[in-house]
Amino acid sequence: MAEEKVSSTGEEDSQVVNPWEVTAKDGGKIDYDKLIEQFGCQRLGADLVQRVERLTGRPAHVFLRRGVFFAHRDFDEILDLYERGEKFYLYTGRGPSSEALHLGHLIPFMFTKYLQDAFKVPLVIQLTDDEKCMWKNISVEDSKRLARENARDIIACGFDVTRTFIFSDFNYLGGKFYENMVKVANCVTFNKVVGIFGFTREDHIGKISFPPVQAVPSFPSSFPHLFADKNNKVNDKLRCLIPCAIDQDPYFRMTRDVAPRIGYQKPSLIESTFFPALQGENGKMSASDPNSAIYVTDSPKDIKNKVNRYAFSGGQDSIEKHRKLGANLEVDIPVKYLSFFLDDDAELEHIKEEYGSGRMLTGQVKARLIEVLSELVERHRRGRALVTDEMVDAFMAVRPLPFMFS
Amino acid sequence: MAEEKVSSTGEEDSQVVNPWEVTAKDGGKIDYDKLIEQFGCQRLGADLVQRVERLTGRPAHVFLRRGVFFAHRDFDEILDLYERGEKFYLYTGRGPSSEALHLGHLIPFMFTKYLQDAFKVPLVIQLTDDEKCMWKNISVEDSKRLARENARDIIACGFDVTRTFIFSDFNYLGGKFYENMVKVANCVTFNKVVGIFGFTREDHIGKISFPPVQAVPSFPSSFPHLFADKNNKVNDKLRCLIPCAIDQDPYFRMTRDVAPRIGYQKPSLIESTFFPALQGENGKMSASDPNSAIYVTDSPKDIKNKVNRYAFSGGQDSIEKHRKLGANLEVDIPVKYLSFFLDDDAELEHIKEEYGSGRMLTGQVKARLIEVLSELVERHRRGRALVTDEMVDAFMAVRPLPFMFS
Repeated sequence: MAEEKVSSTGEEDSQVVNPWEVTAKDGGKIDYDKLIEQFGCQRLGADLVQRVERLTGRPAHVFLRRGVFFAHRDFDEILDLYERGEKFYLYTGRGPSSEALHLGHLIPFMFTKYLQDAFKVPLVIQLTDDEKCMWKNISVEDSKRLARENARDIIACGFDVTRTFIFSDFNYLGGKFYENMVKVANCVTFNKVVGIFGFTREDHIGKISFPPVQAVPSFPSSFPHLFADKNNKVNDKLRCLIPCAIDQDPYFRMTRDVAPRIGYQKPSLIESTFFPALQGENGKMSASDPNSAIYVTDSPKDIKNKVNRYAFSGGQDSIEKHRKLGANLEVDIPVKYLSFFLDDDAELEHIKEEYGSGRMLTGQVKARLIEVLSELVERHRRGRALVTDEMVDAFMAVRPLPFMFS
Repeated sequence: MAEEKVSSTGEEDSQVVNPWEVTAKDGGKIDYDKLIEQFGCQRLGADLVQRVERLTGRPAHVFLRRGVFFAHRDFDEILDLYERGEKFYLYTGRGPSSEALHLGHLIPFMFTKYLQDAFKVPLVIQLTDDEKCMWKNISVEDSKRLARENARDIIACGFDVTRTFIFSDFNYLGGKFYENMVKVANCVTFNKVVGIFGFTREDHIGKISFPPVQAVPSFPSSFPHLFADKNNKVNDKLRCLIPCAIDQDPYFRMTRDVAPRIGYQKPSLIESTFFPALQGENGKMSASDPNSAIYVTDSPKDIKNKVNRYAFSGGQDSIEKHRKLGANLEVDIPVKYLSFFLDDDAELEHIKEEYGSGRMLTGQVKARLIEVLSELVERHRRGRALVTDEMVDAFMAVRPLPFMFS
């Protein structure tokens, strides 16, 4: 199993990427090629993107076209089975650590919604309120409240309630889900989690016991209310596709290592880069520094201020110099953000050409970005306002989804 | 907290007592005085036994009178509050590792039934089917089946269904129980469980994550269906008393250490010696060596054979020598077993005197033991035959127990 290489935990090289830390080498950019090699996943190339378009009969999502989702594990197998007329299910999640989500948090959900619509498949969304309790020292009550608040934001992304089950660990854990946790835990030594996650002997056993919690939604038998037939049997061959940022890869490397040993299918993954901080592309946005990120609760004025004041520019110091040399698009955050959220390929190309050649100024690019982000955030705000308590209850109810594959 | 000393895991001295191993030094007897000192618990003296008799208005159970339950932690505080008219609840349990229980397994349940009857208090009984899955490599399904089979034997001990909740971890774990597990796990480092339980880095994380599962039934909030009031609030001041064999002490040393840090009461304990193997008193009976133990499924013929063939005798080699020297009662298993199960103090004294002085022969003592055990096992068999599937369901239903304190 050459692909299941254990990642370095950051001791040999200064680039650190794990579920709790994302830091580029020497304050530079994350080296995603190196990450693919280190983690042992595969690059998601143009061939696969075209195949997705052909199979789904719709244009690829901007995150696919522009390489935001850039790596995968066995995504081609998912497409193979889909081509044969078989189905799969999606699994994604979130650790509810703050009241408001920022744009980086929305990316996996926006993309997962696209996948759900394009492939017409069920989706489970895990809110790891227990994890946040264990890592952030948040009380159980606060963590559960945040999970519910975050569920509103997730629902606002437009998921289909007839195909989507959202659950929090504190509410759902038990039964078959816990049985699978025990099966996974029985296959993973302390030494192994030290290798994968960098735990130490001073870490409390809550942390050490958590990885199976994030692993088992990869297995359909963890959701008998969704996947069990009339005879209470679950088809363990049903495959799972996990869209996530690549910092979550260690959990699923572990999961894929264990799966065949307990008679289960390995989950497939489709993995994204990190959404950069306004200050530049050397990590992911941080919920703890409000000026590093645009939040879904930011007002148009906040957005304007943050972009104008903090978005790192690749433009030159003076207008003359800029007209002459053009902007450095490699480091420019406004252009980077537009490449995530400006759907129009032609306009994006035009901006890059004009800005890169110096004909367009940073202020103009930022103005367009402010428009795009304000519209996105406003749309989210309107969507969220429509999410009632009853809708949250409906998405989080433990219930069968009889039409989830149709 | 001088009482919360961490036990040796058996490296400095050759007596090893932990939940998975009980071995006396050099094949001798377990040194219970040393265990009390090592574990930091208190000796249960005649004063407490008399106090129990006075408070409950009934004679002390034979296991109390004869020092089978010989150690405790804060049992006096339980008696204090009972004397003030307050109530508490009982918690005991079992790891379901074999189809049939042996007499050693029955001891905590026989004693717990006495406590329930004497104090009129609710009782929770945990069947750690998950633990057995993790330690014994039994499948989830087999472990759940064994738990249910063992529940029949436990019910056959005569528990009161209006005051008793039996649960298996695989069936019950989740909700408030899991919330408490996370709270406990957050307070215990890997180093700490190494110190308490002797885990190693090669142990799988299932084992490392298990101690909180056995810890949290000590807290009333783990059972909202039993202890929550109309406003869903649990009185966290309700105390818990745990009758168990002293090899389980490490779990509750950990629990007592954590409890005040998460705002909970420490559980109290009342702890027994081990029931010796037929071959002699250097450990506890083992379910894996059928000739070391009398099982509740043994026929009268099995019992007769086992006692006559395997019960280690303190009698002398020849009748003449025996008549002259008498039996060594210190090592004699028939006398030891009678001291557990022959309720009549006068008769026991008489046997000890006659046998110790050489007037009574081993064969006669064994004959009496065979009678006593056959009757006990037969009574259990009859009781078990009356336990229907519906009764098991009733005891294991997650339900309120409205009259559990009356």
